[in-house]
Parts: sequence; C-alpha cells; structure tokens
Amino acid sequence: MTTVVKIGGNVIDNPDELRTFIADFAAMPGRKVLVHGGGKVATQISSALGIQTQMIEGRRVTDAQTIDVVTMVYGGLINKRIVAQLQSKGCNSIGLSGADGNVIAAHRRPAKPIDYGFVGDIDRVNADLIVALLNQGVTPVFCALTHDGAGNMLNCNADTIASSVATALAAKEPTELIYCFEKAGVMLDVDDPTSVIPTVDAESFARLKAEGTVHSGMLPKLENALHTVGAGVSSVIIKHSRSLTDPTAGTTIKA
Amino acid sequence: MTTVVKIGGNVIDNPDELRTFIADFAAMPGRKVLVHGGGKVATQISSALGIQTQMIEGRRVTDAQTIDVVTMVYGGLINKRIVAQLQSKGCNSIGLSGADGNVIAAHRRPAKPIDYGFVGDIDRVNADLIVALLNQGVTPVFCALTHDGAGNMLNCNADTIASSVATALAAKEPTELIYCFEKAGVMLDVDDPTSVIPTVDAESFARLKAEGTVHSGMLPKLENALHTVGAGVSSVIIKHSRSLTDPTAGTTIKA
Repeated sequence: MTTVVKIGGNVIDNPDELRTFIADFAAMPGRKVLVHGGGKVATQISSALGIQTQMIEGRRVTDAQTIDVVTMVYGGLINKRIVAQLQSKGCNSIGLSGADGNVIAAHRRPAKPIDYGFVGDIDRVNADLIVALLNQGVTPVFCALTHDGAGNMLNCNADTIASSVATALAAKEPTELIYCFEKAGVMLDVDDPTSVIPTVDAESFARLKAEGTVHSGMLPKLENALHTVGAGVSSVIIKHSRSLTDPTAGTTIKA
Repeated sequence: MTTVVKIGGNVIDNPDELRTFIADFAAMPGRKVLVHGGGKVATQISSALGIQTQMIEGRRVTDAQTIDVVTMVYGGLINKRIVAQLQSKGCNSIGLSGADGNVIAAHRRPAKPIDYGFVGDIDRVNADLIVALLNQGVTPVFCALTHDGAGNMLNCNADTIASSVATALAAKEPTELIYCFEKAGVMLDVDDPTSVIPTVDAESFARLKAEGTVHSGMLPKLENALHTVGAGVSSVIIKHSRSLTDPTAGTTIKA
C-alpha cells in the first residue's frame, strides 16, 4: 500500500507540531508521498513586500506578484525546510511542484466569470515519475503549485493536489490517502473528540447529511473523499496530524 | 556525453538573456544538467524585508534570516521559474537542491576563523539519483543550495555545485562541464573578444600564468577547471551564455 498524506497550514505554521509530524511521517513504513499546504508565511511575506492581497468572494486572487511570492514560499522555503527535516530523520525525500518532471499538468482557470489570476486546474498527473522515485526509495514531497506548460507557475489547492496524486497512483498500485487536519475526524458532536465516526461510505454519508450531522465545511470534504475512493483510491482517512501513526484514529471513507 | 551547464546571476537577472539561454539549453541534444546561480533578487528581497546584509572581508554572511531568503529565492522563485520555462520549450526538467533526494551532502563550514553562517562545504554528490533521472529523460536543474543532514539548508557556490556534480557524474559516464559567463572565453586581450584562447591545458596554463596573460579572477577559474578535468571530467568549457550551442566558441580546458 502506498500512502499519500496531506498536511495543511495549521501544521506548517506551528514549528513544534511540524517537528512532531515530520518525525511520525519519517517513521511510517512503506511507500509514501507527502503533500503540504501553505500556511501564513506567504501572507506575511506579501505584506512585508507591500503586495496588496486582493480577495473576491472570500477567495484570494493570485496576481503576478503573488504567484512569485507563493512560488518562493511554498516551493522554496516550506518545501525545502520539510525535505531537509525529513532527511535529518532518515527519510530520503525530494521536493516537487507540478512543474518538476512535468508531474502535474494544469491549465489556468478561465478568467470568466471571475479571474482568480494564476490559479490552476489539474489536467493530469504523470504517475510514472512518482513511481520511479518511490522505486528508488525516495519520498516525493509536493507543494501546492503546478504549471501551465507555457512557462507559468500556477497556484493550486493542496487537497486537490493530494487527491489527484492519490488517484493517479491508484491506477498503478494500491493507494490510500490521509488528510491530516485540526480535528480528530468526522464527529457526531464537534465538541466531543470521542464522537469520531470510524467509517463513512456513500450510504452512511447520505444518512449523515440528511440528519444534518454532517454539514458546512465537512460536506465538500466528504463528497471529495467519496469521489476519490470512487476513482480507485482504496480509502481516504481524515484524522488529526498528531494521530498519523495510530491506525485506529480518524474517520475512514470507503467506497 | 552528458553535459553539465552552469549559468550565473548575469543571465538570471536579465529576462531576455535568460529566455534565449533557456531556448538554447532546451534545444541541446543529449543528456544534460543545469546549475544556476542566484542573481540580485535575493538581495532585493532581503532589503525589502529589512534584513541587514552583513559582509566579512567582502563576503556575505548567511545568517538564519538570509538562509531563509536564499532558500525561497534560489530554491523556489528562480529554480521553479527556470523549470517551468524549460517545460514550455519541451525540456522535461526537475528542480533540485542538494537536500532533494539527499543528492548533495554537505557540512556547515567551521565557524573559525570566520563564521560565514549557513554556508556549506560539499562532502559528496550521490550521482545515482541524477543518473536515474537522466535515464527517465528528465533534466536535473540545481540551485546552489544544499543541506547538512541535520535539518538545515546551506548556501553554496554555484561553480562548486557544478564541478562537484560533473565530477561525480564523470565517475559513471563521460561528462563535460560548461561554465557560461559574461565573456567569450579566456582571452589574450580582455578588450578583444576575437582573442579567445581555444584550448588550455596544464602546460599552457603555466605559461599563460607566468607571462601574466591570465591573472586575477581568471586564475582560480582556470585552476578549478584544471582540477575538475584532473578529477575525470572530459573537458571544461568557459564561454558566453549566448554561444551555448556553438561548439567552436569559448575556451576548452583539457587535462
């Protein structure tokens, strides 16, 4: 089983949390891939450089200056920091954007109805290079950047990178996907960490949705997870980053 | 023959020059590796972020803030920009620091007599991964960063990265090294671009040095080139970046 693990900004922004996660991830046996989000550093650097952050309907616009900043911060600072720390824990890893080895081909999202700038929608993941690296004993570490094939880097959603990479790998070898986030899993009661629902499938999801147990931000997360297992990924697990190595933790979404 | 090409800041800092170089490099047939220097962007970003540049005996000190900036700029912005542009020209490339795949292992330069901070001296290049990538039809693109194996990125000299990578590759397969710089080659008369010396070997170098034809900055360049061919690299060529594809251009240093 190859495991794709995604961590978000909440882990990146907390050096202690990141250190613990990296030690746990490095110690995970087997073939594995890491996908990381951005965190707050890009916003801090943008602000320090005097770059205005433009938001449309609550979403950031990636203009020419901003794609340079996120390329620096996600593809340089954060990606290399994670790779160097994994190396120090004996995990031989390699940092990748989608441009590297043309491993993720994308196109710029159409400017209509809203122009979000240098934002990419994924066309395909070239899993052959990922498999070749895994065969060399090297763990790919993806930042959430890709390219348009015409020389431009594009900003992308880390969850989408993770599900696309896992789906492409699943066509080659059994693959599972773990989303680390700041909660223990999908919970019956958001205030009760012991109320984690151990497994969700299409049928139970429909029921949880109808009952209103699962709502707002968790709805698209579970819909995407069900879509990903429908596309061939063995299972999608949603769990807290601190429970990475606990096989009983979190919520497992199965087809 | 595998060709390692190094470009410096003068090409990086000039978008037209870089575009021309990238088209020429992409069109070069055969197995190839690119090593790029930094240019002025890191200094501009440092200054914009209010980071003081500390110089000792004319050399920059890479403190903790500065290694973060060069990791962002060299490993992120410049490296990914080059990779994305090479992809657009049909050259499948992959960006690497020495931390990626642990391809270049280094140690932090001793703090005595002068502490230059996060600056690395190379211990070894793991050519196996480079060869594996070349065998996949992928061109490695190195920035001048490596790591200490303890989780820290280290700043390195791009010329040194280039000669170390070429020397390690030469132990596996015939390898040549091209240093692109801002002059046509080693010249008898620095003001006369037609006075390029076509070939230099240890014997003619000793003569050119004794006569004073070669002096100041060109001395260590030629000494390093002779050392590199002595270590197994077939030839070292010093030429202008605009003459990359002209096999008669520049000065060839042979053993």
